[in-house]
Amino acid sequence: MQNFVFYNPTKLVFGQNTQSQVGNLIQENNGTRVLIIYGGGSVKKSGLLTQVKESLKKANIYNIELGGVVPNPRWNMVEEGVHIARENKIDFVLGVGGGSVIDTVKAICMQAVYDGNAWTDFYRAGKTADKALPCGNILTIAAAGSESSPNSVITHEIEKFKIGAYSPAIIPKFAILNPELLYTVSKYQIGCGASDILAHLMERYFTNEKNVDLTDRLIEATAKTLINFAPLVIQNPKDYNAQAELMLTGTIAHNGILDLGRIGDWASHGIEHQLSLFYDIAHGAGLAIVFPAWMKYVYKHDIARFAQFFQNVFGINYSLTNLDLIVTEGIKRLEAFYTSIGMPTRLSQIDIKDDKIAEMAQKAVDSKRVGNFVQLSSKDVEKIYKLAL
Amino acid sequence: MQNFVFYNPTKLVFGQNTQSQVGNLIQENNGTRVLIIYGGGSVKKSGLLTQVKESLKKANIYNIELGGVVPNPRWNMVEEGVHIARENKIDFVLGVGGGSVIDTVKAICMQAVYDGNAWTDFYRAGKTADKALPCGNILTIAAAGSESSPNSVITHEIEKFKIGAYSPAIIPKFAILNPELLYTVSKYQIGCGASDILAHLMERYFTNEKNVDLTDRLIEATAKTLINFAPLVIQNPKDYNAQAELMLTGTIAHNGILDLGRIGDWASHGIEHQLSLFYDIAHGAGLAIVFPAWMKYVYKHDIARFAQFFQNVFGINYSLTNLDLIVTEGIKRLEAFYTSIGMPTRLSQIDIKDDKIAEMAQKAVDSKRVGNFVQLSSKDVEKIYKLAL
Repeated sequence: MQNFVFYNPTKLVFGQNTQSQVGNLIQENNGTRVLIIYGGGSVKKSGLLTQVKESLKKANIYNIELGGVVPNPRWNMVEEGVHIARENKIDFVLGVGGGSVIDTVKAICMQAVYDGNAWTDFYRAGKTADKALPCGNILTIAAAGSESSPNSVITHEIEKFKIGAYSPAIIPKFAILNPELLYTVSKYQIGCGASDILAHLMERYFTNEKNVDLTDRLIEATAKTLINFAPLVIQNPKDYNAQAELMLTGTIAHNGILDLGRIGDWASHGIEHQLSLFYDIAHGAGLAIVFPAWMKYVYKHDIARFAQFFQNVFGINYSLTNLDLIVTEGIKRLEAFYTSIGMPTRLSQIDIKDDKIAEMAQKAVDSKRVGNFVQLSSKDVEKIYKLAL
Repeated sequence: MQNFVFYNPTKLVFGQNTQSQVGNLIQENNGTRVLIIYGGGSVKKSGLLTQVKESLKKANIYNIELGGVVPNPRWNMVEEGVHIARENKIDFVLGVGGGSVIDTVKAICMQAVYDGNAWTDFYRAGKTADKALPCGNILTIAAAGSESSPNSVITHEIEKFKIGAYSPAIIPKFAILNPELLYTVSKYQIGCGASDILAHLMERYFTNEKNVDLTDRLIEATAKTLINFAPLVIQNPKDYNAQAELMLTGTIAHNGILDLGRIGDWASHGIEHQLSLFYDIAHGAGLAIVFPAWMKYVYKHDIARFAQFFQNVFGINYSLTNLDLIVTEGIKRLEAFYTSIGMPTRLSQIDIKDDKIAEMAQKAVDSKRVGNFVQLSSKDVEKIYKLAL
């Protein structure tokens, strides 16, 4: 186990009707002038935005809004938000939405108080912002885990890069988690979210660090729960209890507690980011395609760890004398799980051909190091894309 | 799953040599005048106290110390600490020790800034302190989980009560967790600590709340880890990796993350507190005696939940058609686990007879409500003590 520092002060406010507390929560954090960020019109249509504004009004909090964040959120939207934040002396940014909205909020919070270029320094160059405006969020999709994480992933359309930034300064002050707000998410988006959550768990699981038994067990426990409940949510999106499990799983998967003392891999995320950069596909769908191919390519690096994962999460408990068999069967079960939640598992299923593979592979290694469990070259990444065709 | 609020801002600083960071950590929290609290002489003998003072000196932090906290810590020591804190304008209290030291620190932090009587109001009457001096700690035994919890348990010798208080204001700012500092703990104390950790997990597990699958799985994962590693630590207390697992397990067991959306039982803690109040026995030893008796008394209230626990933690996977058999066998395995870590499982093993049972049972129900999973009367508690004879 590695030495580590863990610090996650996000206040999780979980349950029915919790969105009505947003005004008080912003007050607790000394927010007086709030920029509300959201995505498409669904938060308007559902009435959520109206409820938020009522809560802010009750708390005498000034607010201004900016909608229109898209999946694979863009840097130009961040710049628009920063402009509004500075013009209006904003002291708190509230995201109402999913990972794309919250990641945009975090980028705005860093840039708004930074004289340099946050994209260049914190995303491209990987420096750590030491301050940011405070932010909070009301989550509307269980997926990215951004609601209580120190991470933000943004796409720069002109420079054509999709990269993440990290800073403890952007950990949200609060996350409002009401499973009822997930009832209107489409089945396809629920599947994408579940795939993203599972990916966060698997990226953490595949590590070279030894003596990480507690976190191994905790990751397995969380993955088992996800695999049990995601199909139930897709079957009936208004099943409060199943949504509650899924929502909590998404937060725990990415709040850092399952990471303690270990170094995750994150190659599949890097490989997927190129797919959503080049083809603007949903991140979760891309991960369902990349992960099985990545596994096939690297599993011999530590076959016992893969066998342990498939034993303890997918219940494949035969043939300890032939770990290869467990892993081969395990990858098939993982693919079957993806299929059961409506995810593609091959590039061909979403009409992506092999013509940009070399370019994407080069972009992946140019963006950042690809893989800690197994570090991959652009040639390796090419082979993984080909396995995924 | 119940609605909940989770907030745990303790910074965990884990690993070798981390005690040298204490000065900087106090500085980060604006501490300039520190009261150091510790127990017996072991932190002096080991050189830890000297290392702490060197780190504070480097950070230009004034400090004064108070040693002598005993297991089942006493209110009179709290008063002594408060006197010193006020006299010396202390703005940060540092605990160097285990749960007794840290619980004393928390009590000092509440009383030092409170005009009323903290014992009467926060412990006896169960009110919640809304402010306290900030505190931090360097942990020297894996057990109580107090290092990152909002709880403190104190014994008042004159009033003859041992009760807990709760307040978010006493959550430590940081916890320094270096497994090497556990090398000198006696095997008996390691066993007591492991028993306390397991108790924290089981108190949370036995709930009437439905649809708490994720936290069920997380508690099982943590309990399995504890059961695997505690005996290894006792076998070789200088096994860094095993100590690291045990230490992290102790913190996770009690930091609130395994509680999300559920209401634990806590009857066994209440029943045990009377044993340590009347006989000054170690809390962990008392819990190893009380828990199996409590289980025998209440398991029919929800036999499926008990069977699930013993299946998933102790691996008893036969006879789903006869859950009684799983539970009966499970309790035997739990007792065997306690024995394997040097814990008693009967009052007779520590020479406690039945003469004070009625008085202790009355005291238990007078102190606070006993049990949420199954609420117990003084007659019920008496019967549990008798089962434990």
